[in-house]
Amino acid sequence: MNLAMICYILSWAVCLIGLFLLPSCVVALLYQETVGWVYLAVAAVYIAAGLLLTRRRPATSRFYAKDGYVTVALTWILASILGAVPFTLSGDIPNFLDAVFETASGFSTTGSTILTDIEAVSHASLFWRAFTQWLGGMGILVFLMAILPLSSGRNIHLMRAESTGASVEKMVPKIRESAVLLYKIYGALTLSEMFFLLLGGMPVFEAITTGLTTGGTGGFGVLNTSMSSYSPYIQYVVTIFALLFGVNFGVYFLFLARKFKTGLLYEELRWYLLIIAVATAVVMWDIRDLFPTLEEVFRHSFFQVVTVITTTGYMSTDFNLWPTLSKTVLVLLMFVGACAGSTGGGMKISRWLLMGKYVKCEARRLRHPRVVYKLRLNGSAVSDDILRQVLVYLVAYVLIFIASLLLISLEGYDLVTNFTTVATAYNNVGPGLSLAGPTANFAFFSPLSKVVLIFDMLAGRLEVLPLVVLLSAIGERCVKTLKRTTREQE
Amino acid sequence: MNLAMICYILSWAVCLIGLFLLPSCVVALLYQETVGWVYLAVAAVYIAAGLLLTRRRPATSRFYAKDGYVTVALTWILASILGAVPFTLSGDIPNFLDAVFETASGFSTTGSTILTDIEAVSHASLFWRAFTQWLGGMGILVFLMAILPLSSGRNIHLMRAESTGASVEKMVPKIRESAVLLYKIYGALTLSEMFFLLLGGMPVFEAITTGLTTGGTGGFGVLNTSMSSYSPYIQYVVTIFALLFGVNFGVYFLFLARKFKTGLLYEELRWYLLIIAVATAVVMWDIRDLFPTLEEVFRHSFFQVVTVITTTGYMSTDFNLWPTLSKTVLVLLMFVGACAGSTGGGMKISRWLLMGKYVKCEARRLRHPRVVYKLRLNGSAVSDDILRQVLVYLVAYVLIFIASLLLISLEGYDLVTNFTTVATAYNNVGPGLSLAGPTANFAFFSPLSKVVLIFDMLAGRLEVLPLVVLLSAIGERCVKTLKRTTREQE
Repeated sequence: MNLAMICYILSWAVCLIGLFLLPSCVVALLYQETVGWVYLAVAAVYIAAGLLLTRRRPATSRFYAKDGYVTVALTWILASILGAVPFTLSGDIPNFLDAVFETASGFSTTGSTILTDIEAVSHASLFWRAFTQWLGGMGILVFLMAILPLSSGRNIHLMRAESTGASVEKMVPKIRESAVLLYKIYGALTLSEMFFLLLGGMPVFEAITTGLTTGGTGGFGVLNTSMSSYSPYIQYVVTIFALLFGVNFGVYFLFLARKFKTGLLYEELRWYLLIIAVATAVVMWDIRDLFPTLEEVFRHSFFQVVTVITTTGYMSTDFNLWPTLSKTVLVLLMFVGACAGSTGGGMKISRWLLMGKYVKCEARRLRHPRVVYKLRLNGSAVSDDILRQVLVYLVAYVLIFIASLLLISLEGYDLVTNFTTVATAYNNVGPGLSLAGPTANFAFFSPLSKVVLIFDMLAGRLEVLPLVVLLSAIGERCVKTLKRTTREQE
Repeated sequence: MNLAMICYILSWAVCLIGLFLLPSCVVALLYQETVGWVYLAVAAVYIAAGLLLTRRRPATSRFYAKDGYVTVALTWILASILGAVPFTLSGDIPNFLDAVFETASGFSTTGSTILTDIEAVSHASLFWRAFTQWLGGMGILVFLMAILPLSSGRNIHLMRAESTGASVEKMVPKIRESAVLLYKIYGALTLSEMFFLLLGGMPVFEAITTGLTTGGTGGFGVLNTSMSSYSPYIQYVVTIFALLFGVNFGVYFLFLARKFKTGLLYEELRWYLLIIAVATAVVMWDIRDLFPTLEEVFRHSFFQVVTVITTTGYMSTDFNLWPTLSKTVLVLLMFVGACAGSTGGGMKISRWLLMGKYVKCEARRLRHPRVVYKLRLNGSAVSDDILRQVLVYLVAYVLIFIASLLLISLEGYDLVTNFTTVATAYNNVGPGLSLAGPTANFAFFSPLSKVVLIFDMLAGRLEVLPLVVLLSAIGERCVKTLKRTTREQE
């Protein structure tokens, strides 16, 4: 592994997190909050430390896929810790582990909170919470790539490890230009949402933070009631934009390139819309008696289905009180997730499509052993490498899920709480059911459970592999050191 | 597909089911029950019909893997329907769908029952229930192979499709001899259990049925209280034998061949015992305050862990009332399952081992792309074909599980009931939690849910693939017919 190069990129990440803290200083200035000084001081320290560390340039620029995975895993762990510091120093979240939980929940775009009274928090911290989700949605290192001139070999490995979904297609030949383009589309969509929210009479600060948290499909609210106290118009705007952020950004690129037909015929997109339509219909039928008018039944069904499948996780009403069928549909949608290459979490629709096609293909192969079947997705053939990654992902996903569930169960809460807590953290949704329902928060969990959930949130956002590679590397190094020490003792 | 050959084997299966009904006639005679005439009549019809149908011999004996899968799937569906007829005609289970559920639960060695008062059922029917589990444990077609001289090419495909676990190793060169040997080991173990149960003072009829249902890791009881009213000695005997029936029968074959060391070093066996030991310890710690003595804490923990991991599904106490951690451990053990090549259900420990090794291997491959890692299990290399089958199994398992869960959720029971009902049926365990707990029965489910659960029980016992291949074949045929009719209309 090229440790020097990994440290070099990490140093830039430290510097970057310092820069990301600056907008919160502006917010503090506008609201005349003294916590602004805390944000400014922390930002200055990070920027200075980062710049100092980047002066040691690595001797060689060799950079392999494994280096990409390890860099990405370490960057996100570091970001969750560094980002938590101003929360604690400002006194908004006194407990540091809680602050790390909140920051990891932010960067991973989960949106689960440990805050019992969100409205008591300073505006600077509320903005920082929302901003972590916006950054986490597209990726911290993708941002770095957009502003830093790194070699392209390095870039593709970082991009692959940080992006969501089974495959990263290069939109334009140069990775750096792809990164810039992604952030441009992302920014434009976010600004449009803020515009429409302001049109609906939402206060400016709330419109900005809601735009940021919808953009990252994160779901942190600035009100204790999440989205349930807003007007139907605002709820519809949020629903539509959450739906748009759950779409593969490659589709928008095709639209920009005026390839409308190719974009609309994207297989994953059609399934995404179909699943949302069917799920909304099922939930509407199931909750038809809970609201007086058909409009309300439709609005809440549509809102919750979209917010859960895109793993945003806002609530328009307490769906923990809905009937079982609706709750089952929502929990399953958590696992389905949004499109690959979107800012959404979950397992991603393209993975489910590939898995379904894989079973169909293998069943056919068993019946006609001599015919060669080729898996196709979105019109192009799927390589064996990508298929293998999907399968490894599924297996690792299941194993980590079970281990997390067991650790959370040590606390003795009910089965539904435990299962949906792990499901919501791992799929980066936000709210679960029962004790972890949409009106609850995660403050009551033990420190051990919080550490497990932090791991799950990051593993979910990074799609398991980077953390598995990191753990595998650490494990191997430990074994080697152990062997060496025992040999030396002999 | 060689339809003529499939029909030929199915005809023999019909004949065989007739023969299997005869012991129930003897039981009826001993207890002077008039339902014996029903069993005799049905048996006579099946044997006569089967023999008549087998007179049409197939022209060609070509028999491929796909034919094996389709034959196995059809045999088990047919067995569940034919085996249900005497239940309904005798009046013991008046509703035919309920009778099919009970029979499928029997042959698939699940042990979920729709009977509200087991003790009111005739001895002949109780024996038939127990006997289906014993036959289902090792396999209906494996039995057929043991008594019928079929060509070996046909045998290996049938054996592969019906046996549990990822790979079938031939114990002896000839498949037929393997089948005979398997049934000999199976019979000897079952008889030993009956002997030890009789020693403990269990009534003869109960000892025989308990031996049969433990043998198949089925778990049908003949008392309404399952195993909770028996003496500690009997509970220990049942636990030990359930544990033994959950071991890969290949291990016993190695013992018979005096290869004790190879047998004991079997990787899967060591993990099986380790998981049981750890799970028992965790459950003991969790329920330490529920029973007055340490012996009782140990006995119930050990009993329930073994009965669930081997997917037998007896109860010694109502574990639905246990704390969450224990319930979570038990539900997870349902998915773990017993060893491959045993009579137990679930996903099988060898599959979990392969999946864990696969992730480890892939993580290593990502870090050292040029080194070739080979998966090994039980000391020998695992072929890519077997690995692929494990992965297809996992994907198909997840997809069918989700579909079943959604269909069961239509009834509106609580989430825990729905989830554990599907889990217990699919893994062939028997009892679930909440409304489907160990003291409950499955009679309250709607006909749709019962059909879904029948499918799940059979899919679980046949390890998904045979039913997937059957559905795929039917689907393709429908599409072809549709195309032909539309072409003719044009």
